[in-house]
Amino acid sequence: MKNSAILLVQCRDQKGLDAAIADFIYRHNGNILHFEQHQSSDDSFYFARVEWDLTDFQLLLSDFSAKFNPIAEKFGMSWRVALATYRPRVAILVSKYDHCLVDLLYRQRIGELKCEIPLIISNHPDAQRHADFHAIPYHIIPVTKENKREAEQRQRELFDHHKIDLIVLARYMQILSPEFISLYPQQIINIHHSFLPAFVGAKPHLQAYERGVKLIGATAHYVTEVLDDGPIIEQGVARISHRDALEDLVEKGRDLEKLVLSRAVRWHIENRILLHGNRTVIFE
Amino acid sequence: MKNSAILLVQCRDQKGLDAAIADFIYRHNGNILHFEQHQSSDDSFYFARVEWDLTDFQLLLSDFSAKFNPIAEKFGMSWRVALATYRPRVAILVSKYDHCLVDLLYRQRIGELKCEIPLIISNHPDAQRHADFHAIPYHIIPVTKENKREAEQRQRELFDHHKIDLIVLARYMQILSPEFISLYPQQIINIHHSFLPAFVGAKPHLQAYERGVKLIGATAHYVTEVLDDGPIIEQGVARISHRDALEDLVEKGRDLEKLVLSRAVRWHIENRILLHGNRTVIFE
Amino acid sequence: MKNSAILLVQCRDQKGLDAAIADFIYRHNGNILHFEQHQSSDDSFYFARVEWDLTDFQLLLSDFSAKFNPIAEKFGMSWRVALATYRPRVAILVSKYDHCLVDLLYRQRIGELKCEIPLIISNHPDAQRHADFHAIPYHIIPVTKENKREAEQRQRELFDHHKIDLIVLARYMQILSPEFISLYPQQIINIHHSFLPAFVGAKPHLQAYERGVKLIGATAHYVTEVLDDGPIIEQGVARISHRDALEDLVEKGRDLEKLVLSRAVRWHIENRILLHGNRTVIFE
Amino acid sequence: MKNSAILLVQCRDQKGLDAAIADFIYRHNGNILHFEQHQSSDDSFYFARVEWDLTDFQLLLSDFSAKFNPIAEKFGMSWRVALATYRPRVAILVSKYDHCLVDLLYRQRIGELKCEIPLIISNHPDAQRHADFHAIPYHIIPVTKENKREAEQRQRELFDHHKIDLIVLARYMQILSPEFISLYPQQIINIHHSFLPAFVGAKPHLQAYERGVKLIGATAHYVTEVLDDGPIIEQGVARISHRDALEDLVEKGRDLEKLVLSRAVRWHIENRILLHGNRTVIFE
Repeated sequence: MKNSAILLVQCRDQKGLDAAIADFIYRHNGNILHFEQHQSSDDSFYFARVEWDLTDFQLLLSDFSAKFNPIAEKFGMSWRVALATYRPRVAILVSKYDHCLVDLLYRQRIGELKCEIPLIISNHPDAQRHADFHAIPYHIIPVTKENKREAEQRQRELFDHHKIDLIVLARYMQILSPEFISLYPQQIINIHHSFLPAFVGAKPHLQAYERGVKLIGATAHYVTEVLDDGPIIEQGVARISHRDALEDLVEKGRDLEKLVLSRAVRWHIENRILLHGNRTVIFE
Repeated sequence: MKNSAILLVQCRDQKGLDAAIADFIYRHNGNILHFEQHQSSDDSFYFARVEWDLTDFQLLLSDFSAKFNPIAEKFGMSWRVALATYRPRVAILVSKYDHCLVDLLYRQRIGELKCEIPLIISNHPDAQRHADFHAIPYHIIPVTKENKREAEQRQRELFDHHKIDLIVLARYMQILSPEFISLYPQQIINIHHSFLPAFVGAKPHLQAYERGVKLIGATAHYVTEVLDDGPIIEQGVARISHRDALEDLVEKGRDLEKLVLSRAVRWHIENRILLHGNRTVIFE
Repeated sequence: MKNSAILLVQCRDQKGLDAAIADFIYRHNGNILHFEQHQSSDDSFYFARVEWDLTDFQLLLSDFSAKFNPIAEKFGMSWRVALATYRPRVAILVSKYDHCLVDLLYRQRIGELKCEIPLIISNHPDAQRHADFHAIPYHIIPVTKENKREAEQRQRELFDHHKIDLIVLARYMQILSPEFISLYPQQIINIHHSFLPAFVGAKPHLQAYERGVKLIGATAHYVTEVLDDGPIIEQGVARISHRDALEDLVEKGRDLEKLVLSRAVRWHIENRILLHGNRTVIFE
Repeated sequence: MKNSAILLVQCRDQKGLDAAIADFIYRHNGNILHFEQHQSSDDSFYFARVEWDLTDFQLLLSDFSAKFNPIAEKFGMSWRVALATYRPRVAILVSKYDHCLVDLLYRQRIGELKCEIPLIISNHPDAQRHADFHAIPYHIIPVTKENKREAEQRQRELFDHHKIDLIVLARYMQILSPEFISLYPQQIINIHHSFLPAFVGAKPHLQAYERGVKLIGATAHYVTEVLDDGPIIEQGVARISHRDALEDLVEKGRDLEKLVLSRAVRWHIENRILLHGNRTVIFE
């Protein structure tokens, strides 16, 4: 595991931003490993992701804020710093379709997703065996129209208790309440089984089938209060034809959803995603 | 050029369809080159495209109908037969963006699109030089809200005069009237610069840019009375990221549109497309 | 599960093939579900895959051969018939990298791969837990230069005992002897982690990395006596760039290998693959 | 046209590189538009591409070298600076297949390729009309085994006379001599109609067809003394199947070659390509 730190910055674009950041790290004897920046041409906003080797770095992360603040204030930056060695704590929610869950668990097991998965929550018992195979606690929290409030309350208690950093809806089919969503800004990633903004809501495969599209898609996005409308993180498509019946779309969709969701989760875990309004800037 | 004929058939699915068609051609000493069929699982409809070598075929195409009708009636078939040597007469309509036009003209010139292009119509003079380079008559028919009726009248006269089989809207930005469209069922192909049904109507690239999608698309479809809603023939996508400004979407879109539209035109010319409700069955 | 049968045919191209086959099925009251055929233009060979509904079919499969033989002999056909309900018995061989194995097991479990997996063989113990999770017997057969003969002997005994129809080398890194291979013509599918014929043999990712390609690939193919040279069934690619170190190629390669191998296995299981010299004809 | 400058740097990786470069531009009142860097993990080499707005920049480009040299020497940098407003002078060489030539001319005409095309050279007269259409001088220089030396001599004179910066072999089928190649390091881009390193040399489509690959490719690369072995700039693939005869591979190949070559030429023109041994680092 790289002993590095990641600084994420956004602010209005101004002269000297790259120099100020690079110089700050250099002056404290850091060796920059990656420096990626972007300026949005339409509204002159600046985004940067800098990763540097902490070996020989003269600043303790506990002192970073105090030392970096003058620069941050000078430029009006929003910023945060993270340790590459920190393994984000990820809760996975799943309903009946377990393909995304199984895929995420495998990737975490082999070290591709550098995170902890302290728990899995489901409104069904079906996926229990996958949780058991990976020795991860599995919580069955059924959801109905009447108990929604209590169900979400239970989920939030679990997230608090396990100090969850990221909630992944891995084909979790319940709609979250606005109150719940507002507690976790840019902390809930959902996989929607269509190429957004086409086919929002329920039964996107059936909608796609009836429209006669030649490509189906999957979209991973942050969850916001408007259904299927949050910032898009990643998308993918696969070809279909008249030979594909509805169940073939579902099947081809599975492979897409696994790829798209795992990429999105990975980029989030690796501190590669910045928000620009309702869009994402991703430093891959 | 292959000396072959193509039979397209659709009807309710029944036993013996493949045998009846194959046997008919064999009995008249035809050698089948390609036999493609499909049965839709949801509504039990049958589609077939059969291409056979006319060398030694004992039936004149003028007698084909009389001889084939008994079979057609027995099974309740909709059908048509076409000669591979027949070069469909294609009119291309274009506005200011000429990339699709230039691409189609090149492909026709090198023999990839086996059709005639008797005329090009535009509401602007910009593309005249491409028409001149290919020695194709270029008709400038400006369109305004007031003269729409007359403009379409003039277009229809040109189509009649030149015995046009197919009308290709190659980034032709005027909206056709329902009356016009109704005269040419499954004879007008449009290229829309988005991945339908996402971003219908005007400025799809701007819509895509604002939504923050990670893929942009292009869609070739038959024009029906509802804007951007007709049966989809072909679609393609290209990756974009935060680094792509609006003009980059337009640019990447160009390459997509050329590929997607030319494939759609080609399949239509080669008698490979059948309609199934608002969807297409394409025997590539 | 569809109650259908599949007939695969190949022979020299002649008039009347489609009619003869379709008519044969129709005369015995079969309803054809799919009819796909192909004639190779360079050497005039004919290939067909016909699938028909056995409901009401008047021929017992045990009588099929006797009744179909006259047609087969008349045209000089190689042919075989299979039941869609028959679940091929697949043995999976794996070494240390278990991603393909895990992927195949999942797909078989959810019904995507309609086959039986009676056993898994490995030269390492690492993948035992996956076999246990799916309650499949796991046989550890270490392979060294000295014991190769005995190891293969043991494998063959297991294949015979379990009546294995297909052997899948799911990142099984041992090279099979020519004698072993010759016992299983068109019955061994391997996944090679490159885009063949580029980077044959060992360390294809390192070779790819050093060549500086911009795409890496994976290839599923039938195993023949020449290493990595057998008929290609399926291939896929993924983009890489200078930012991808060797381990990134390995990682991106995993996703490719899973997709490519599972498609190849599926098409084989579904009787969709015919051999044409050292190439494949695949009726998807 | 952006009034910007581009600095390209490569050297051994060391602390303070990003800071030194960013600070240099900032100190001279430059506003950095893009800063992209990369460190190769295997051999610790550093690469950077920095683009900054020249508005308000206090250094004349004629003084840049003197002022930047101390930094360059301190770090042992290889570097060069270029003006975004400078339009590289590109010579295109073509044989009989003109699809890449036509594609490049169109892109240059509409402003996508920001370069000058002072001349086109061919060993055939076929493409003359495209040159005439774009009012570009067309030089027919036939090449035989006997006159190769003189032909290349004539080409070099034309390159010198027109101050050519880049030579594009747009399906130019003559093999260049090592002497010729050595005069233009990283200045000759070729499009090879296969996915290198597969199918080098002659008739790659036929080789691909015989191998039975399921994807064909195209590769744009810098020309070095070993045929088809130079640093790869860009690659693309397209799907093929048993239904594709050799001429279909050629046809699908055309669309690939146009896309791949135009991207490579564009990145070179925009100073986005750095060499790392026999590989390329491309800051897209």
